[in-house]
Amino acid sequence: MKSELKTAKPASGSRIHMTELILPNDANVLGNVLGGRVMHWIDLAAATTAHRHCNSICVTAAIEGLSFLNPIKVGELAHLDARIVYTGRTSLIVKVEVHSEDMDTGVTKKTAEAYLVFVNLGADGKPQIVPPLLIQNDEEKAERARAELIKARYSKVKE
Amino acid sequence: MKSELKTAKPASGSRIHMTELILPNDANVLGNVLGGRVMHWIDLAAATTAHRHCNSICVTAAIEGLSFLNPIKVGELAHLDARIVYTGRTSLIVKVEVHSEDMDTGVTKKTAEAYLVFVNLGADGKPQIVPPLLIQNDEEKAERARAELIKARYSKVKE
Amino acid sequence: MKSELKTAKPASGSRIHMTELILPNDANVLGNVLGGRVMHWIDLAAATTAHRHCNSICVTAAIEGLSFLNPIKVGELAHLDARIVYTGRTSLIVKVEVHSEDMDTGVTKKTAEAYLVFVNLGADGKPQIVPPLLIQNDEEKAERARAELIKARYSKVKE
Amino acid sequence: MKSELKTAKPASGSRIHMTELILPNDANVLGNVLGGRVMHWIDLAAATTAHRHCNSICVTAAIEGLSFLNPIKVGELAHLDARIVYTGRTSLIVKVEVHSEDMDTGVTKKTAEAYLVFVNLGADGKPQIVPPLLIQNDEEKAERARAELIKARYSKVKE
Amino acid sequence: MKSELKTAKPASGSRIHMTELILPNDANVLGNVLGGRVMHWIDLAAATTAHRHCNSICVTAAIEGLSFLNPIKVGELAHLDARIVYTGRTSLIVKVEVHSEDMDTGVTKKTAEAYLVFVNLGADGKPQIVPPLLIQNDEEKAERARAELIKARYSKVKE
Amino acid sequence: MKSELKTAKPASGSRIHMTELILPNDANVLGNVLGGRVMHWIDLAAATTAHRHCNSICVTAAIEGLSFLNPIKVGELAHLDARIVYTGRTSLIVKVEVHSEDMDTGVTKKTAEAYLVFVNLGADGKPQIVPPLLIQNDEEKAERARAELIKARYSKVKE
Repeated sequence: MKSELKTAKPASGSRIHMTELILPNDANVLGNVLGGRVMHWIDLAAATTAHRHCNSICVTAAIEGLSFLNPIKVGELAHLDARIVYTGRTSLIVKVEVHSEDMDTGVTKKTAEAYLVFVNLGADGKPQIVPPLLIQNDEEKAERARAELIKARYSKVKE
Repeated sequence: MKSELKTAKPASGSRIHMTELILPNDANVLGNVLGGRVMHWIDLAAATTAHRHCNSICVTAAIEGLSFLNPIKVGELAHLDARIVYTGRTSLIVKVEVHSEDMDTGVTKKTAEAYLVFVNLGADGKPQIVPPLLIQNDEEKAERARAELIKARYSKVKE
Repeated sequence: MKSELKTAKPASGSRIHMTELILPNDANVLGNVLGGRVMHWIDLAAATTAHRHCNSICVTAAIEGLSFLNPIKVGELAHLDARIVYTGRTSLIVKVEVHSEDMDTGVTKKTAEAYLVFVNLGADGKPQIVPPLLIQNDEEKAERARAELIKARYSKVKE
Repeated sequence: MKSELKTAKPASGSRIHMTELILPNDANVLGNVLGGRVMHWIDLAAATTAHRHCNSICVTAAIEGLSFLNPIKVGELAHLDARIVYTGRTSLIVKVEVHSEDMDTGVTKKTAEAYLVFVNLGADGKPQIVPPLLIQNDEEKAERARAELIKARYSKVKE
Repeated sequence: MKSELKTAKPASGSRIHMTELILPNDANVLGNVLGGRVMHWIDLAAATTAHRHCNSICVTAAIEGLSFLNPIKVGELAHLDARIVYTGRTSLIVKVEVHSEDMDTGVTKKTAEAYLVFVNLGADGKPQIVPPLLIQNDEEKAERARAELIKARYSKVKE
Repeated sequence: MKSELKTAKPASGSRIHMTELILPNDANVLGNVLGGRVMHWIDLAAATTAHRHCNSICVTAAIEGLSFLNPIKVGELAHLDARIVYTGRTSLIVKVEVHSEDMDTGVTKKTAEAYLVFVNLGADGKPQIVPPLLIQNDEEKAERARAELIKARYSKVKE
C-alpha cells in the first residue's frame, strides 16, 4: 500500500446531485419504484462521489442504515444527494439522501437515506490512501460522528 | 384551450441538473457513449424541466440545434443542465447543455447542447397556457433571443 | 390493522434460490459486477421470499449489514439464497447470501450478505399481520438472535 | 478437435434453478410475460447448465420443442429448471421446464418447456469433447430417449 | 369461438423486416450476440407479423426448428425477415430468417431461422378464426408444406 | 486526412428500415412512447445507414429539424426509414422518417422526422473522405437541396 500523504479536501468538491424520472419500467405492480432500483441509483451516486474525492476508482464494501421512509410513484422525480461524511486510511463513507418530487404539485418528501462504505483502489487494484476529508462546519462534524458509529458497526473494514 | 392568465416564473425554479455515469452498456464499439443514449437523457432532463415549470405534463414537439462537440468515454460522467429559455402561449423551449467529466483528472468538457420545444398539456390532453418566463438578467435575455431564432425555424408550432 | 392470528410457517416454505449470469451489461470498467446490480437482485430475492411467506405483497423498509466480501467477474454466476430469519407483528427480516461461481473451475466464493426489513401490506395498502416464523433448529434460533440485533439498530419500524 | 476421454458426470452436478419475478417491463399489453423474455431466460439457464457440465463455454446451436402452455402474469414468479438430458461427442442437450407461481395463492402451473442443443467450445473456439452424461435412473433414461428423438430432428449437428 | 369466414390474405401484406445493431450489451464474453437476445427479436418479429395478418393480438404457442448457423459479432447488424407460411383455423405459423451484416465489408451471412406457432386471440381473450393465407407462388407452396411438417411435430395445437 | 477519391454510391444501397414494437417499458405515464426512446432509434437507424454507405464507422455530429407530429401508443409499431440525402467531404446527412402503425386497424401515421449529420471516421479515428452520393432522380435532388439548407444552419461542420 502506498503511504504518501494526500491533501485534505472538502466534501463540497465531490458532492453529487442526481435526478431520476420514475418510468413504468422502474416500478412494481403497485406503481411504486422498486427498492432495488433506488439502491442501484444510490450506489451509482455514492460510487461517483467517492471516485471524485479520490480521483481513482472506489468499490462498494458495505451499506448500512439504508431506510425507505416513503414510496416514490411512477411519474415522480427522485433527487439523490451524495456527499463524503467520513474518511479513514483507505476507506471512506458516503451518505446519500433521496427525496421524491411530485412535479404537478411541487411537493417533495424524504424517501430514503443510506451510508455506503467504499474502499479506494490504486491502478494496481490494491487499496490506496484516501485524501482526508476537510471538515468545514458543525454539521459536517456531527455527520462524521454519526458515520463513525456506522463504521464501528461494520467490522469488516480493518485499517 | 383554457385562457386563464398564469403567474410568471423564473427559470431558476425549474432548472434541473442530472448526472449519469457512462456504463459499458451505454457505449458503442469505440467505447464512446451512444448518441442516442445522450439524446434520451437530454429529452428526460428537458421534459422534467418543462413539467416543473408548468406543473403539468409536457410533450416533446421538436429538437433543434442538437450538436455533439466531444465524445464521452465509458467510466466518465455526463452532467446535464436543463433550463427554460423561452415561453410561448402553450409551448416553451428548454436549452440543455451536457458536459463530460473525467473523474481521475477532474477535467470537464462541453460535449453537447440542444434546444427542445415542448407543448404543455392539460388534464384533458389538450394544449394549455404556459406560465410566462420571468427574465431576470441580460444572459437570460440573450438566451431568449437565440431561442426565438430556433422557434422561427420550427414552423410546426403555431399559436 | 387486521388482528387475526396467523398460522406459523417454517422458513423452508418461502426460501428462494436465484441464479444470475453476469453479463457485460452488469459490470463496471474493471469487469466486476456493479454493486447496485447485486443490490437490485438481493432486493428482488428478499421481496419474493417475504411475499411467499405472507402470501401478500411486502415493501422494503430497510437494509442493514450489507457487505461485499469479494467481487464477481463478468461470465461468472451469482447464486442468491434468501430466507426469513425473523418475524415481528407486521414486519419481517430476510437474510440474503450471495455466492459467486466460476463455471470453468467450479470454484465458489461468498461475495455478499444482507439483512432486509420488509413490511407486509394488505389489499388496502395498510400494514398487515405477518404469519409467525416457525423456528425449527438451533441454526435458525441463532439467526433469529442476530436478526433481533439488526432490528434493534433499525429504529424506524415501530409496532 | 481434441480426442481426450472425459469422465462421465451426473446431471445433478450441473442442474440449475433460476427464479425470475415478472416485472411490468417484461410484459405485453395483456399483462402477460413476453414469449421472447421467457426464451431469453430459458437460453441463459440452459447455457449455464451446459457450461457447468463441460467447465467451458457452450454456444446455442438449436432449440426444439419449445411450447408455451400457460401465460405468466406480471407479479408472478417464473421458476426455471434446467438439466442435461443427452450428451453427444461435442454437443449436448439441455431440457428446461418453466413453472409460474402466484405468490398470493401459492398456485403453480407448468408454463413452458424446451430442448436446447449446445456445442461445447475449447479455448481455441473449436468444438471440444463433452464429458459423457452418467445416467442414474429410469427417468433419466427416458429423458435421454426423448432427447435422441429431438436430436434426430435436428439435422445440423453432425459429429 | 366465432365461426365467421375471413377473407384470405397474402403473406406480403404482413411480412416484417427488422434490423438490430448488436451493442456490447447484447453480447456474451466472446463478443457474440446472446442466443436469448436473438430469440427475443425473433419472437417480436414473428408476433408482429401474426398480429398484422390477423389484425388482433396473437400469442406464442410454440417454437420449432430454431437453429443458429453462425454467430453475430458486436458492431454487426442482424436483419430479421418474418412471414406467414401456414394458417390453420385459429393458429398460424411464422417463419423467421436472420442474417448478419458486417457493415465494414458488406458481407452478409445467414445466422438463424425458426418456425413459430401463434394462436390468434379475440377481444374476449379466446382463440379466434385466422384469415386464411393466400398462396401466390410455388415457393410459398413449398414453405407451407414444410410448415405442415413442423405443425405435425407440434402436437399441442388441436383444432 | 486521406484524400483518395471514392466511387459515388446511390442512397438505395445503404437505406435502412427498422421496425420497433412499443412495449410498456418504452412509454411515459400517458401510454405514449418516450421522445428519447424514439431519438435513440432514430440515431441507431441513421448511424447504421451512414456506416453502410461509408463502410466505416460514423459518429453523430448534429441533429436538426427533429419534429414529433403524432404520439405513438404502447402496442403500436414504429417504422423507421433512414436514407442518405447529402454527402460533403468527410460528413454526410441522413434523413429519418418515422411512421406509427396500429396493427388492429392497419392505420399508419407519420410521427416524426429528423436530419442527422455524421462524420465518417477512418481506422485512425480521424475524419475520412465519404463516398459521394449518386443522385438518381428529382426527388433525391430536392432532398439534397433541403439538406443543404440544414447544413447551412449547422455551423459546426467545417470542411
